[in-house]
Amino acid sequence: MKSFSMIEIGQVGWIEKDKPTAGILDAIVRPLAVSPCTSDIHTAFEGGLGDRHNMTLGHEAVGEIVEVGSEVKDFKPGDRVVVPAITPDWRSIEAQDGYHQHSNKMLSGWKFSNFKDGVFAEYFHVNDADMNLAKLPEEIPLTTAVMITDMMTTGFHGAELANIKIGASVAVIGIGPVGLMAVAGAFLRGAGRIFVVGSRQNCIDVAKSFGATDVINYKNGDIAEQVLNATNGKGVDSVIIAGAGTEIMKSAVKMTKPGGTISNVNYFGEGEIIPIPRIEWGCGMAHKQIRGGLCPGGRLRMERLINIVKYGRVNPGKLVTHVFNGFGNMEKALLLMREKPADLIKPVVIVD
Amino acid sequence: MKSFSMIEIGQVGWIEKDKPTAGILDAIVRPLAVSPCTSDIHTAFEGGLGDRHNMTLGHEAVGEIVEVGSEVKDFKPGDRVVVPAITPDWRSIEAQDGYHQHSNKMLSGWKFSNFKDGVFAEYFHVNDADMNLAKLPEEIPLTTAVMITDMMTTGFHGAELANIKIGASVAVIGIGPVGLMAVAGAFLRGAGRIFVVGSRQNCIDVAKSFGATDVINYKNGDIAEQVLNATNGKGVDSVIIAGAGTEIMKSAVKMTKPGGTISNVNYFGEGEIIPIPRIEWGCGMAHKQIRGGLCPGGRLRMERLINIVKYGRVNPGKLVTHVFNGFGNMEKALLLMREKPADLIKPVVIVD
Amino acid sequence: MKSFSMIEIGQVGWIEKDKPTAGILDAIVRPLAVSPCTSDIHTAFEGGLGDRHNMTLGHEAVGEIVEVGSEVKDFKPGDRVVVPAITPDWRSIEAQDGYHQHSNKMLSGWKFSNFKDGVFAEYFHVNDADMNLAKLPEEIPLTTAVMITDMMTTGFHGAELANIKIGASVAVIGIGPVGLMAVAGAFLRGAGRIFVVGSRQNCIDVAKSFGATDVINYKNGDIAEQVLNATNGKGVDSVIIAGAGTEIMKSAVKMTKPGGTISNVNYFGEGEIIPIPRIEWGCGMAHKQIRGGLCPGGRLRMERLINIVKYGRVNPGKLVTHVFNGFGNMEKALLLMREKPADLIKPVVIVD
Amino acid sequence: MKSFSMIEIGQVGWIEKDKPTAGILDAIVRPLAVSPCTSDIHTAFEGGLGDRHNMTLGHEAVGEIVEVGSEVKDFKPGDRVVVPAITPDWRSIEAQDGYHQHSNKMLSGWKFSNFKDGVFAEYFHVNDADMNLAKLPEEIPLTTAVMITDMMTTGFHGAELANIKIGASVAVIGIGPVGLMAVAGAFLRGAGRIFVVGSRQNCIDVAKSFGATDVINYKNGDIAEQVLNATNGKGVDSVIIAGAGTEIMKSAVKMTKPGGTISNVNYFGEGEIIPIPRIEWGCGMAHKQIRGGLCPGGRLRMERLINIVKYGRVNPGKLVTHVFNGFGNMEKALLLMREKPADLIKPVVIVD
Repeated sequence: MKSFSMIEIGQVGWIEKDKPTAGILDAIVRPLAVSPCTSDIHTAFEGGLGDRHNMTLGHEAVGEIVEVGSEVKDFKPGDRVVVPAITPDWRSIEAQDGYHQHSNKMLSGWKFSNFKDGVFAEYFHVNDADMNLAKLPEEIPLTTAVMITDMMTTGFHGAELANIKIGASVAVIGIGPVGLMAVAGAFLRGAGRIFVVGSRQNCIDVAKSFGATDVINYKNGDIAEQVLNATNGKGVDSVIIAGAGTEIMKSAVKMTKPGGTISNVNYFGEGEIIPIPRIEWGCGMAHKQIRGGLCPGGRLRMERLINIVKYGRVNPGKLVTHVFNGFGNMEKALLLMREKPADLIKPVVIVD
Repeated sequence: MKSFSMIEIGQVGWIEKDKPTAGILDAIVRPLAVSPCTSDIHTAFEGGLGDRHNMTLGHEAVGEIVEVGSEVKDFKPGDRVVVPAITPDWRSIEAQDGYHQHSNKMLSGWKFSNFKDGVFAEYFHVNDADMNLAKLPEEIPLTTAVMITDMMTTGFHGAELANIKIGASVAVIGIGPVGLMAVAGAFLRGAGRIFVVGSRQNCIDVAKSFGATDVINYKNGDIAEQVLNATNGKGVDSVIIAGAGTEIMKSAVKMTKPGGTISNVNYFGEGEIIPIPRIEWGCGMAHKQIRGGLCPGGRLRMERLINIVKYGRVNPGKLVTHVFNGFGNMEKALLLMREKPADLIKPVVIVD
Repeated sequence: MKSFSMIEIGQVGWIEKDKPTAGILDAIVRPLAVSPCTSDIHTAFEGGLGDRHNMTLGHEAVGEIVEVGSEVKDFKPGDRVVVPAITPDWRSIEAQDGYHQHSNKMLSGWKFSNFKDGVFAEYFHVNDADMNLAKLPEEIPLTTAVMITDMMTTGFHGAELANIKIGASVAVIGIGPVGLMAVAGAFLRGAGRIFVVGSRQNCIDVAKSFGATDVINYKNGDIAEQVLNATNGKGVDSVIIAGAGTEIMKSAVKMTKPGGTISNVNYFGEGEIIPIPRIEWGCGMAHKQIRGGLCPGGRLRMERLINIVKYGRVNPGKLVTHVFNGFGNMEKALLLMREKPADLIKPVVIVD
Repeated sequence: MKSFSMIEIGQVGWIEKDKPTAGILDAIVRPLAVSPCTSDIHTAFEGGLGDRHNMTLGHEAVGEIVEVGSEVKDFKPGDRVVVPAITPDWRSIEAQDGYHQHSNKMLSGWKFSNFKDGVFAEYFHVNDADMNLAKLPEEIPLTTAVMITDMMTTGFHGAELANIKIGASVAVIGIGPVGLMAVAGAFLRGAGRIFVVGSRQNCIDVAKSFGATDVINYKNGDIAEQVLNATNGKGVDSVIIAGAGTEIMKSAVKMTKPGGTISNVNYFGEGEIIPIPRIEWGCGMAHKQIRGGLCPGGRLRMERLINIVKYGRVNPGKLVTHVFNGFGNMEKALLLMREKPADLIKPVVIVD
């Protein structure tokens, strides 16, 4: 079968691979729509995960089941499914402890295009189908559904980690697709005032439609100062980091109230350390909690997010600015994610 | 001054009272808009709080400050304020423990028209103004603002106690004004599917506009069975009780999943006990948590809810079906709350 | 093989059964020490679970593995293991949601001697060995270890559900073996003053050694009144119910502070309802949370409790008042649990 | 009256000051026993709080009330009281939000010897006596009681912030007096295995008596590596930082499991930033939560900790290695804290 792969760091393209086979609990899925992610760019062009050879890229897909293992109970060939980017080993001590994302090892709930072939291929393998897949309702378009698999669960997790109280104030740093879903997530946890830090107009427009109330632009000075000035020097109750480099932690802590929370869902790809500013962190005593984590995956998570879409709470389809028809456009879509033109939020490839 | 009072159980009317005076931390407020509450009816006509004589009724008001004590720092005469129904003693052990509603004694955060004169008078007294009042932004209409003081904080508290996870399912039992705000609160905590149990069309319409997805009508059979049937026998993650008598606990527990939560914000006025159904509660082992509590009051709570309104998250003004102009209509408004005509949700009296 | 079974309601005895076989993830275990539980009595003599025929009794055991399935990774024949009473299906939506006790169905994490043969047999079957078993350190005696499997995880769960804050006050109702472990659990969550409600001297002695500070005896009057009198009318922060019939809920709620928690780990075997007292529950508004749940099982739980014993935090061996040598004494031990002589807390049978 | 003061940075000594007077809610207290704290050393000799002139030092005291304001209800002259280091303004928005430590401003719950005269004087002033003082039971010795005011509440807070589950593993970094109380606190939250990082024998002995199971010595190599080696490379569930400079955050994060918590109660006095190690923090995705905060103060906290001592849960008197009789020895005790001889944990001065 054909696989759109990272051949080595810096080189991507279509290669021929064996069609995967299903273990007794697994499924083989044919993608219907896929989306490249910034982390595909990190992986393929910057070696973010280290050296990989001939590994199929991609971890955002909705598809159709073509084969299931003998012990799969709830799914059958022909079913249309949402496939989470995170497909953990549910039989692990870490899942017993509430952290399936780190099943067996830190971050190892993330398998696709990390230490296993991804979803940009004619077929891909899903471990533990009953525990990791969710049925796609007819009424949700493919382009919208593929946003659930990673962007929505990640952005919403940013809001979940942020301990948002009803009516409290939140700042979301970065309004790429994850940041936008973090805005929507903050809205869905009951945030009152929502600051967003960003400058691209199309993203600002979507952010506002998701509930952003104040826009902070780097070009107008120190972002933490701007938030402090807008809040009588008090700062916000919660900050969600959804972009930028490690230095952003300084701004995030500075703009947070004592007793507040800094939540991170950004992948920090470079730098030895992430700096907590000592004075603004109250010399260790300010009760400014710092959290960060890989998005939840698995079936229940997908089912709950599908309900968010199905019942019209939030429309993640707004993220999709570019739609390509035909798997042949995979490279074009991926490179678009690399170039990030001004009008891009997320591209989707409809497979056939 | 004139006070609209409960003269004794069963008798209400205007009486003459001394104008209250402010202690050093207190404020005297002139009401601008008030709303009668079902609990005023319980208190005045059913003796819900026991015998009371010549007590001013009412605990839902927005007003204008006319006097402040010498130590009040953040408010001055002329300020327009939202006055919470619950005005606790913040200097109490219970507030230190996180339960200001029960400052000094169970439920004693509730003072107005309970063990102190209420707000249906030319002037009323507010203890600890800096800790209990919040400024009313110009852009919020009086009729909307008065809904914040009790209905919104109560309904939202139902949602807060219900441990709602993003995308989870919720059932709200009772869609009077508190139940409607519970629906809005569930929406703001990220509920997916929201069942409402009720039958009045105007309430159903508002419930849907706040996010209800399924309507359950008592007339169509056992309400718990209906919810179970609609959820493949699984039940919902959370139930919020916002109406009905004590027997409702049986239905609430029955329609809740193991691991789910039953949250109560209904005032149970009658009966010796509230029955938990043994089998459906897993013989004590089902992890179906039962919670219930008086709404939060005080300044911070009001400020956060004001932001919910100000930033357009939820419009509690939708509850207001009847507006009366002139304090002279106070009795008419109260009796309307007693009669509960089909088109009523909440009446508001604009004082002048 | 020989199995000590419930033949029908009211009749127990040794019968011949086929030796169980292991699925690919399972283990077959030979018991080294077992203990009968009050619920075995309910099941066998009172029909607590309904009709059962020729079902092996028992769910408290430590043993030696004699066979493992082909996919079991961490265990092998000859390993000595602690076997939790609760052996859930970790691959279930409920486990994903944090409630493995209710995997697939309410209470269905409890399999042994419920809807599957129990542990009072020459051999017994354990589903998902890697996820449900834990290695038994040499230094822990068999009699002590068998107390971990149910008594300790149940009693400690009572303390976990009780939201105990450091230095807070707790009342434990019932000081049978579960109640005693609840006392130890409350101590290990940092309780200050610990009331126990009970009257048997040997239990009182053990309770004191686990941290009880005040003993309340039913014979001296209403137990809630006694606790209120001892706390200036305030009540305690948390109550753990570990015994008694459904009426106990009235006392439990009455002796709890507003904002406090009532935690139940008692199996309520009779009655249609469990009565919450309306007035003492603040008419639904007192923030007196009511929780209750089946004990956690599985490997991680067992490993953590083993560490509690291994590092000398608590010695559950104190519960063991009667030790029988030889499986032939199984019936004697079971009947002892039925008779409950004054000097009994828990009997253990050393199998060979 | 005489006050032992910081005259300027680097100079301490007895000076004459006016006796303080009580506002209507306040108390004037005569110290019975006091203890110097490492932060007194930072303040006085290193300018940790910036320039201060003629400010009475000290924030750890038990004393006798000599005067109360007109509105104080629960205390009277002659009462012996425990005085928390942290005496917040309970009438503040931050206290309403659950963070009294930061009432009105970050860290401003800490008043004594920070921006107000401390307790090393013949008399000192306590704001809001009813909300901040607690009665000292006769049976607790003065030397023990003074350990409650700061060391115990701080060390225990480290354990509270660490999200300890029953039987989980904990590492405490630093076993000075705060670290030792963190060990006791971890024990009281139910920790299983407790690593301590330290090297002084007297501290190690007390740590073991409080529940430490494994001692890690800096001299034997990288401390994180040692903890990882001792845990099969898994790390611990929780880390409590109770000493060392900012670089310690690297070790703390490294030795923590994904899903674990790093809790800080150390005052970081130097450095621009506190470095989170990027890789070990999972590039922002490891769910290794970082928390830190000033200890809780106020009356309820003191009462609960007093109960911990009164009921024999933990004996903080073990920290007291040096007792001086007579206020004249104040400087000697303070300088001892500066010199830190090998046999010192905490000195106490009995005032008369």
